[in-house]
Amino acid sequence: MPRFMDVHHNMKGITADQLREAHNADLAIEKDEAVHFEKAWADPASGTVYCLSEAPSAEAVQRIHERSGHLADEIHPVPLTI
Amino acid sequence: MPRFMDVHHNMKGITADQLREAHNADLAIEKDEAVHFEKAWADPASGTVYCLSEAPSAEAVQRIHERSGHLADEIHPVPLTI
Repeated sequence: MPRFMDVHHNMKGITADQLREAHNADLAIEKDEAVHFEKAWADPASGTVYCLSEAPSAEAVQRIHERSGHLADEIHPVPLTI
Repeated sequence: MPRFMDVHHNMKGITADQLREAHNADLAIEKDEAVHFEKAWADPASGTVYCLSEAPSAEAVQRIHERSGHLADEIHPVPLTI
């Protein structure tokens, strides 16, 4: 299954609780699109959030994020990992 | 130890071998700055590379990348992980 890194900007001040809530909202519906969100990292100072997922397509990742209320600003396939 | 996500742009066409070489070049000298590069993900199509590290500071991360010949374009502390 392809892997994707998606990026959210404008999340300044995000807290650990808010990150967990957002991630859980994705996990609750991810199976509808055969997506799995593996990890997320947040920088509250710059407002940047990175999410790593396995998914059939970038569009599938975005549909889950859209339904959860947090559209991604960028979604990159990352076929290379080390 | 703080965790950082750094981003490289302009790596279009990067291959698996090139990613491995770049990562190994970082690993070979990372101890000089008490940095550890944990993972890297690359999108050859857009030329984006993400590196996840543990390090004392963003400057320490950049010093290693600079000596390895691939300065990061962005380095974000990511104190929140899920």
